[in-house]
Amino acid sequence: MIYLDNAATTYPKPESVYEAILHQMKNFGANPGRSGHKMAIEAGRSIFNARELVARLFNIDNPMQIIFTSNATEALNLAIKGLLKAGDHVITTSMEHNSVLRPITTLEKIGVKNTIIQCSGAGYVEPSDVKKAINENTKLIVMTHASNVTGTLMPIEEIGKIAKEAGINFLVDAAQTAGVYEIDVKKLNIDLLALPGHKGLLGPQGTGLLYIREGLDIMHFKEGGTGSKSEELVQPEMLPDRYESGTPNTPGIAGLAKGIEFIMETGLDKIRQHEEALTQQFIDEISHIHQVKIYGPKDAKRQAAVVSINIGEEDSSEIAYILDKVFNIAVRPGLHCAPHTHKTIGTFEQGTVRFSFGYFNKKEDVEAAVAAIKEICEQL
Amino acid sequence: MIYLDNAATTYPKPESVYEAILHQMKNFGANPGRSGHKMAIEAGRSIFNARELVARLFNIDNPMQIIFTSNATEALNLAIKGLLKAGDHVITTSMEHNSVLRPITTLEKIGVKNTIIQCSGAGYVEPSDVKKAINENTKLIVMTHASNVTGTLMPIEEIGKIAKEAGINFLVDAAQTAGVYEIDVKKLNIDLLALPGHKGLLGPQGTGLLYIREGLDIMHFKEGGTGSKSEELVQPEMLPDRYESGTPNTPGIAGLAKGIEFIMETGLDKIRQHEEALTQQFIDEISHIHQVKIYGPKDAKRQAAVVSINIGEEDSSEIAYILDKVFNIAVRPGLHCAPHTHKTIGTFEQGTVRFSFGYFNKKEDVEAAVAAIKEICEQL
Repeated sequence: MIYLDNAATTYPKPESVYEAILHQMKNFGANPGRSGHKMAIEAGRSIFNARELVARLFNIDNPMQIIFTSNATEALNLAIKGLLKAGDHVITTSMEHNSVLRPITTLEKIGVKNTIIQCSGAGYVEPSDVKKAINENTKLIVMTHASNVTGTLMPIEEIGKIAKEAGINFLVDAAQTAGVYEIDVKKLNIDLLALPGHKGLLGPQGTGLLYIREGLDIMHFKEGGTGSKSEELVQPEMLPDRYESGTPNTPGIAGLAKGIEFIMETGLDKIRQHEEALTQQFIDEISHIHQVKIYGPKDAKRQAAVVSINIGEEDSSEIAYILDKVFNIAVRPGLHCAPHTHKTIGTFEQGTVRFSFGYFNKKEDVEAAVAAIKEICEQL
Repeated sequence: MIYLDNAATTYPKPESVYEAILHQMKNFGANPGRSGHKMAIEAGRSIFNARELVARLFNIDNPMQIIFTSNATEALNLAIKGLLKAGDHVITTSMEHNSVLRPITTLEKIGVKNTIIQCSGAGYVEPSDVKKAINENTKLIVMTHASNVTGTLMPIEEIGKIAKEAGINFLVDAAQTAGVYEIDVKKLNIDLLALPGHKGLLGPQGTGLLYIREGLDIMHFKEGGTGSKSEELVQPEMLPDRYESGTPNTPGIAGLAKGIEFIMETGLDKIRQHEEALTQQFIDEISHIHQVKIYGPKDAKRQAAVVSINIGEEDSSEIAYILDKVFNIAVRPGLHCAPHTHKTIGTFEQGTVRFSFGYFNKKEDVEAAVAAIKEICEQL
């Protein structure tokens, strides 16, 4: 199977990731941070090692400000609901995933207002539109670093500056960019960074994380055993314990650490350049097929390795079905959990067929996808 | 290392668990329930297979009422906070873990009252005490099936009947019993069942679950992409989607399925009998050592395979440290995230040294532990 669904989860993972998960389970399969015996300490070390690698990758001073979650959705829920209170105002964009849109919609019920900035047809948000939307109650700007539908890279540096100047917290959803693009939380003025471990970071499913800037008080939403201050009936205030109750996904986090090590050894630039080359190759070659409509920037420098297309008026699910059954190519059709995005790019009814490339894809995979699209177009 | 810390997490896991995790990641490492291609469908099947196995093990009619979580703590938080509202009253016991005590303490702030039933010195709760505590606002009885400190098995059948007669929801924390003791949610009148995947169920860390009786409305606390009803900005009402936002821990859940299969093939009775035998052997042999104080029922028929002890007035951490360093035996000292339990059994200052046995422990492991305890006592 030719796997072009890396925006959902990357596949395959580096061999070292598989090995680390197994090694952790078979040799140090104890509960970290609970008991004090050798195996438990080794398990705890493995989690701390992952925390340090994450800190290094995103230029975070204190690894204890990194909270491991089960996925990016949990990280986004924690950040959004933990920060916003009745009377607050939040700004976001029309290119967001339901993991941002659904929490802010829920918060309307408790009196948190929101402004959803309309993006351009290519999915781009104007920083000046964000600035104009700020009012005296604005507490948070939350936005994706790159659209999961069109790949459109957002001007997070400019918006980070706007947020900082206005004294507003800035939450970035890096689901489509972490591990591929440089993200320096200090340079970009990011107060909160949410991301999955199983996409660009090349770790296993079941991992995600939230970085919380020091001094920012986010309400936790799970309480329980932390292995610390067991004598107290209230959740400990110290990080990461406050937000990490119960047994963590130790093997998953050990795998994630190896994914990050692979990225550091390979180099972000090399990974990004490879993905850019595949994306540009794909865009260039399908641009000539007259039935194909491509959404988004159509420029690999302005988008992550995610390209949404449609063929004529054909249902996106039908095309994806043919790609799977006839050509053995894995893509994702439909709305991709991002309804406003499809209203923005004009595909709310049809959805899109999304091709997303990863570091382990080759030129030949792109060629096969292009050939398949051509053949489908000829048959129609 | 002789691993006697199975109450924290079981170790090792069956070989089939390791294999399934790796097989899932290497062969079907796609995102389940999102795309429609072969790998994604296979990943989705793997999750559904696990749901069906869980349903069979606990006699649950509809597998869609089973919610996968990252651990038992998340399941307990979801159940407790999702059910209780201002003005409600909840009953629990003095033998609970902080994953129950901390959420109900937090709920005091929004006006949820609680009654913590004092248990006996051996950790046993009197069903009549629970009955007496019920008032017109009582909405929930939550309790552990077995103490994580003393192993004391709780009379959940009697209390299930009391709850049913009174029309009160009954939430059981089966962290120490699932996969070893028969738990039939219908026979026991359990409305909500929370448990980890990585203890008696022999799955990997990063897994847990909550069973919700059909018709029970529990408020979700995470929203996001569910791969269903993507066009809507509100969380879908259908289960399990309502409670399972974002990418699940697919490899972990695939491993959990194999853990449950192992249990079904081996038989609950055989597993329980083996653990009972080890527990009784341990209790019998250390009962003769005069410096040793044993807590709990001191009867393998009345407790899970968890035995807490102390040696004279020695600090529990010091004893565990010696067991680890000198004898290469892994146990857990301290309060085990259960402060009221230690007040109940009189060890709030000293903590206890907890020995917990698993199916993969052998008689020889118990003998080694007994010999080590004897030697420590002689040296003191």
